[in-house]
Amino acid sequence: MIDACYPRHGANPFNLDGREASAIRRVTADLGTVAARGALDGAEVVFNLAGQVSHVDSMNDPLFDLDVNTRSQVAFLEALRWVSPDAVVVFTSTRQLFGRPRYLPVDEEHPVAPVDVNGITKHAAERFHLLYHEVHGVRSTVVRLTNVFGPRQRLRDDFQGFLPIFIRRALLGQPISLFGDGSQERDCLYVDDVVDCLVRAATTREAVGEVFNVGNDERLSLRAIADLIVAAAGSGSVECVPWPPDRDAIDIGSYFGDSSKAKRVLGWSPETTFARGIDRTVAFYREHLERYL
Amino acid sequence: MIDACYPRHGANPFNLDGREASAIRRVTADLGTVAARGALDGAEVVFNLAGQVSHVDSMNDPLFDLDVNTRSQVAFLEALRWVSPDAVVVFTSTRQLFGRPRYLPVDEEHPVAPVDVNGITKHAAERFHLLYHEVHGVRSTVVRLTNVFGPRQRLRDDFQGFLPIFIRRALLGQPISLFGDGSQERDCLYVDDVVDCLVRAATTREAVGEVFNVGNDERLSLRAIADLIVAAAGSGSVECVPWPPDRDAIDIGSYFGDSSKAKRVLGWSPETTFARGIDRTVAFYREHLERYL
Repeated sequence: MIDACYPRHGANPFNLDGREASAIRRVTADLGTVAARGALDGAEVVFNLAGQVSHVDSMNDPLFDLDVNTRSQVAFLEALRWVSPDAVVVFTSTRQLFGRPRYLPVDEEHPVAPVDVNGITKHAAERFHLLYHEVHGVRSTVVRLTNVFGPRQRLRDDFQGFLPIFIRRALLGQPISLFGDGSQERDCLYVDDVVDCLVRAATTREAVGEVFNVGNDERLSLRAIADLIVAAAGSGSVECVPWPPDRDAIDIGSYFGDSSKAKRVLGWSPETTFARGIDRTVAFYREHLERYL
Repeated sequence: MIDACYPRHGANPFNLDGREASAIRRVTADLGTVAARGALDGAEVVFNLAGQVSHVDSMNDPLFDLDVNTRSQVAFLEALRWVSPDAVVVFTSTRQLFGRPRYLPVDEEHPVAPVDVNGITKHAAERFHLLYHEVHGVRSTVVRLTNVFGPRQRLRDDFQGFLPIFIRRALLGQPISLFGDGSQERDCLYVDDVVDCLVRAATTREAVGEVFNVGNDERLSLRAIADLIVAAAGSGSVECVPWPPDRDAIDIGSYFGDSSKAKRVLGWSPETTFARGIDRTVAFYREHLERYL
């Protein structure tokens, strides 16, 4: 396991605290470094989940986002094609690169129109993966994830998307603030469904060189999501506030993805309803919340 | 004038050798550096022509291409929005980001599908310029140029596109090698027409936030282009050779652009035929060839 352990990113030693975890070799390094290159030697499958994921941070510190999401990715691909040219790479991208959807649900043919630095850099990183497949034969697959939630996600601060913010505030008995009226819809994916999808992507020969939009058929308004989180937590509340200008400038309205291609090619489908997933998530954090704050 | 003067790029002291040139303040620095930031202070118009332009080099040294074409560009935009927020920026991009055309002529709605690292990084740089316009109010315009030729272009080596290669070989009495049968078509722009277009883009209010494909209505096969160059030079010859594998992998077939939008919005049109442009170009290099080899 290679993790740069950057501040404000998701690394947490407690996530590797257990009997099985002792067998995992851990390398603390940016994916673009020589140290990471050494760790890639002989890899058969690389789940490439490395990235700066905060859209707001990408606007405040665009060069850091660019370095992590493009420079390190290109250095990784260059290293991989020399040290493990036969490895399968599953690269996780984001629905954010579509910007404000022109139609719903969003399939793989939908035009890419990023509305922030993070969308631009993640799309460039996708293209590097596909180019290295086309030109250098690297066996890359791109999986564009929608909003992911579940146990072991960083809750400490507000840089990992809206779901961890909502979950933390409910667990701490605080109000969840919705921008506007909270009517924008989202599809959310429970982490176990994401893991299932990534494993299938890594083991499906037809997935190589392909891009998949991976979302959920269950679509909920942000209001409904917040209400379900508050109900599961048994604490917290929901309030509506006006849009902050910096968020408004990069907001994209409703989004939900069309996962037909992933279902067809990977034989995957999401199994966990939001209500069930949030119950499991709340149960986990009730036990371990202090590890994630 | 800011120029990094990188090796294999187009900088040439002779291009600033003259009476008027002494009035030009020259800063030798990468566009992304603090030195460049200082030089931008108070700028009213920035013609942002900085970039790594070799497609083959971008595949051989992808990190250098990425640094020059994205990191330096983002650092430039960040600097500009603080030191000269009202400046107009005309950013020159490339037809190469379209990849192999799905239809001809290629207009601004044509899907972007880069086939090399350079196409990916130049498109990301376009998006950064447009994002900084949308979100931060930077007055950016993107001009996607087709193949440019004329006096003062680097002829020394083979990294600036096919036109300088053809011109150098003809002037030196060497054979021009065409890959395949040379039937792929291109539109070529004489440098004076490009300058006219960039000045119009900088001075047309309606151009801000817009993207323009800038090409020529005169389309010629590579064979015809080579023959015209040999005829103008009165030396050299033309031969057909098989495709080298590294070129074949990133070749895009025929390309010519649809400049309707540039004509309509900027009131621009190319005035120089290829035959006339190449005559002027050959006349210039006959006098100064040793400065460019």
